[in-house]
Amino acid sequence: MSASRALWGRNALLRAVSISPSPTGGRATRSAGLSLECRRRFTASTRAMSSFYADWEPEGPSVKTQIPGPKSKAAIAELNEVFDTRSLNMLTDYTRSVGNYIADLDGNVLLDVYAQIASIPLGYNNPVLRQAARSPEMINGIINRPALGNFPSAEWAEILKTGILRVAPKGLNQVFTAMAGSDANETAYKAAFMWRRQRDRGGPSVEFTEEEMNSAMNNQSPGASQLSILSFKTGFHGRLFGSLSTTRSKPIHKVDIPAFDWPQATFPQLKYPLDQHAAENAAIERAALDEVEHLIKTYHVPPCAVVVEPIQSEGGDNHATPAFFRGLREITRKHGVLLIVDEVQTGVGATGRFWAHEHWDLPHPPDIVTFSKKAQTAGYYFGNPELRPNKPYRQFNTWMGDPARALLFRAIIDEVEKHDLVRHTANVGEYLYGKLEGLAAKYPDEFRNLRGKGMGTFIAFDSPRRDEFLAKAKTLGVNIGGSGQSAVRLRPMLIFEKKHADILVDVLEKIVTSW
Amino acid sequence: MSASRALWGRNALLRAVSISPSPTGGRATRSAGLSLECRRRFTASTRAMSSFYADWEPEGPSVKTQIPGPKSKAAIAELNEVFDTRSLNMLTDYTRSVGNYIADLDGNVLLDVYAQIASIPLGYNNPVLRQAARSPEMINGIINRPALGNFPSAEWAEILKTGILRVAPKGLNQVFTAMAGSDANETAYKAAFMWRRQRDRGGPSVEFTEEEMNSAMNNQSPGASQLSILSFKTGFHGRLFGSLSTTRSKPIHKVDIPAFDWPQATFPQLKYPLDQHAAENAAIERAALDEVEHLIKTYHVPPCAVVVEPIQSEGGDNHATPAFFRGLREITRKHGVLLIVDEVQTGVGATGRFWAHEHWDLPHPPDIVTFSKKAQTAGYYFGNPELRPNKPYRQFNTWMGDPARALLFRAIIDEVEKHDLVRHTANVGEYLYGKLEGLAAKYPDEFRNLRGKGMGTFIAFDSPRRDEFLAKAKTLGVNIGGSGQSAVRLRPMLIFEKKHADILVDVLEKIVTSW
Repeated sequence: MSASRALWGRNALLRAVSISPSPTGGRATRSAGLSLECRRRFTASTRAMSSFYADWEPEGPSVKTQIPGPKSKAAIAELNEVFDTRSLNMLTDYTRSVGNYIADLDGNVLLDVYAQIASIPLGYNNPVLRQAARSPEMINGIINRPALGNFPSAEWAEILKTGILRVAPKGLNQVFTAMAGSDANETAYKAAFMWRRQRDRGGPSVEFTEEEMNSAMNNQSPGASQLSILSFKTGFHGRLFGSLSTTRSKPIHKVDIPAFDWPQATFPQLKYPLDQHAAENAAIERAALDEVEHLIKTYHVPPCAVVVEPIQSEGGDNHATPAFFRGLREITRKHGVLLIVDEVQTGVGATGRFWAHEHWDLPHPPDIVTFSKKAQTAGYYFGNPELRPNKPYRQFNTWMGDPARALLFRAIIDEVEKHDLVRHTANVGEYLYGKLEGLAAKYPDEFRNLRGKGMGTFIAFDSPRRDEFLAKAKTLGVNIGGSGQSAVRLRPMLIFEKKHADILVDVLEKIVTSW
Repeated sequence: MSASRALWGRNALLRAVSISPSPTGGRATRSAGLSLECRRRFTASTRAMSSFYADWEPEGPSVKTQIPGPKSKAAIAELNEVFDTRSLNMLTDYTRSVGNYIADLDGNVLLDVYAQIASIPLGYNNPVLRQAARSPEMINGIINRPALGNFPSAEWAEILKTGILRVAPKGLNQVFTAMAGSDANETAYKAAFMWRRQRDRGGPSVEFTEEEMNSAMNNQSPGASQLSILSFKTGFHGRLFGSLSTTRSKPIHKVDIPAFDWPQATFPQLKYPLDQHAAENAAIERAALDEVEHLIKTYHVPPCAVVVEPIQSEGGDNHATPAFFRGLREITRKHGVLLIVDEVQTGVGATGRFWAHEHWDLPHPPDIVTFSKKAQTAGYYFGNPELRPNKPYRQFNTWMGDPARALLFRAIIDEVEKHDLVRHTANVGEYLYGKLEGLAAKYPDEFRNLRGKGMGTFIAFDSPRRDEFLAKAKTLGVNIGGSGQSAVRLRPMLIFEKKHADILVDVLEKIVTSW
């Protein structure tokens, strides 16, 4: 038994999974003759379809029952007694899920291109992460959870420098760690408010006035500042009270929840195919930028920051061009407003760059970049020392992140680098996009507004019957998510290979020909 | 080598730690003759001073250098390059911290009665939690982090039922899991807003109007509801935008951050000793309740919930009597307002009950109880099915908690029950309180307003020079925290024993006699 088999140890079980309904038998065997060393050196430029770990995945999906099947139905009913299951997509057997494949209790094994809402980077039960989870450092992090702001460990600097900060966006060398995307964004917003008020007050050494302190305690201005965060229509930045005030995805996310009177600008609604609408799209983006500038100059609660997703990942997979984002950077700098780039869903490689904003070729970096999901931990990067508030305990909470999750991110980064997975994802994305272009040409009514060219595997298209499309995909062995009203969003893991793209494309065609 | 030694494996190192400056040599040896079985059966009613795990702790604190010492100073400077260290209390060596003792890089080992801001329940490097961290379930939870709302595991119901829900407060049988105290409170607030609007709208089957949906997307009423959460002055409920709007601890926590126009009532400011001010305190509490009722009836942004801590744990360790809380329950029920009890800091045993609100003997349970800290995970309990929003995806986020941390809480609960640690803490607290009464009688100017009688080890007193007091404590081998302006707050772990109380009291006396 090879080392990688020993790590994994459940191949016999998984190889026994039957290969149906997708005809993929021929593909998985192509890598069989490659040595371990060769597999280690696999990069996206390699034409071979070898997997990253030998024999760790089933050869294809296997659908044995309706989903949910009888065992899942019983388990869901039990769970529903104590936990709301109405948003449940699939009750999952994580012990039998592996690599790109997600399993359920009834023996169904699906190719997973949703990946826990884009948050699994390296596959289920990744053997290298398993080793990391067994390490003494991880166990220490689990059982001795620190209050990081007060009692960081002696290793915390090294964990940050060799992990989270090793992949810091260019120009940003500081980090504030958090728990999830929502609080990563909210702490970033807090930093923006404090920075702006400090500037307006006359610098870090100017003390708060009595009036500021007293009114703040009563939630009134001037202490509670009358400033805002500008966000974009159909954007998504989280569900807590501050982040939800910048989220503009769907009414179901917002109705009944008090919100701040903050402004929203129109996100460009590009027309596809892009090459046939270049002038029109440029005008659309110019108008969106003008609206942003107008709101910055005139909104009655002045924005101190603009928050934007590189791709609106919940609100419909809406893209804009690098020129738009460069324009946004120019306008925000011109008006002394911070640019916060929310990379919670786009970050960590899926767009073919480690951070999606690297596609923009910005002359000046964003002021703040937030992250979570595939990082398995969360927080925000910044570079300007003035974004550290002028006094301690202004930006603070008990846990301030989780060292165990930061360690896992470090192990993820190691593996991403070792296998050159960002470049790999760029190449597999290009391959997948080409196949989808073929489908869109063949079935133009079913695959509309294909988008994400050059953005790795972060690809989407609109379906005229999207929810039915996603449900049908499950019956054919693929787990896919939607975004916005009509988008089918593809969010494969970074270990998604051309062989998986072939299975996916095959199923996508089967869906539309089944109707 | 015994089993417990094997689990621990660093006793030789720790036993080599010198015992200075506190003279504790005689105490730790008292348990030496007890069998393992006897130790397992240790309960608070046992007079023997045995520890819960054989030989796992040093016999007392050891202070070898100034804190921070030279090694710590160098490491702090390195950390400060990338991470704000101005709130740093002590750079910690978690690999050498054990049980009730926290260690640093310079060989200093302190008795820790701050415990990561009251969030370590069973000691550093607890051998039983170490085993739990090595379990296949934990490793699965670490490496296969689910989006719990969409893809819960087949085991999630069992993890909840045998863990978090096993200790659910009476009358509350549902849970919504979260990441930390702030988002536990914020999701509870969201549930309250949705519940109230649903009731006002006419029930769960009444659809949102077009106007509600459109205005919500623009952060305006009626979609963004004009309702509030009522909180108490000097209360603390977190640092995100919604929770911070209910936090009224200190200006430094709030200045510059936009806040909702929500009401605050006066928390009773009881006079001590309680038995000498019974009538006066009753009047104070009656006035506070009247203010709450007045605000509920008249505040221009009507409260749909009242949030309260059983003990204001950040704002100065302010206590109120069970009668006050029963009055609060009565008023909130009378006016159809929810009662949210924030047990983030008071929960999980430290007050001598698993939940502090068990001290109140409420005729009707709270509507919602939030938890975090010692639970090592977070969320809120509720019992009323109408607190499940009428549609899915209204209360939702990607991770919705962390199964790995939920597993750890289950292991903590097992250990709390096995050693009867809640009753133990009640008894040790009574012992400690008695000793502190002695100190307060002897040094009435230095130990003022002693409070927390009958509340386990959740004890505090005011010091006329509090910050100096805390700094001095470190030099004498004890790590203690403060709360509010002048309180010294004691937050020992649940494994704090009488022998540790003796060390603590000894140091407290040394502090005030050193001046």
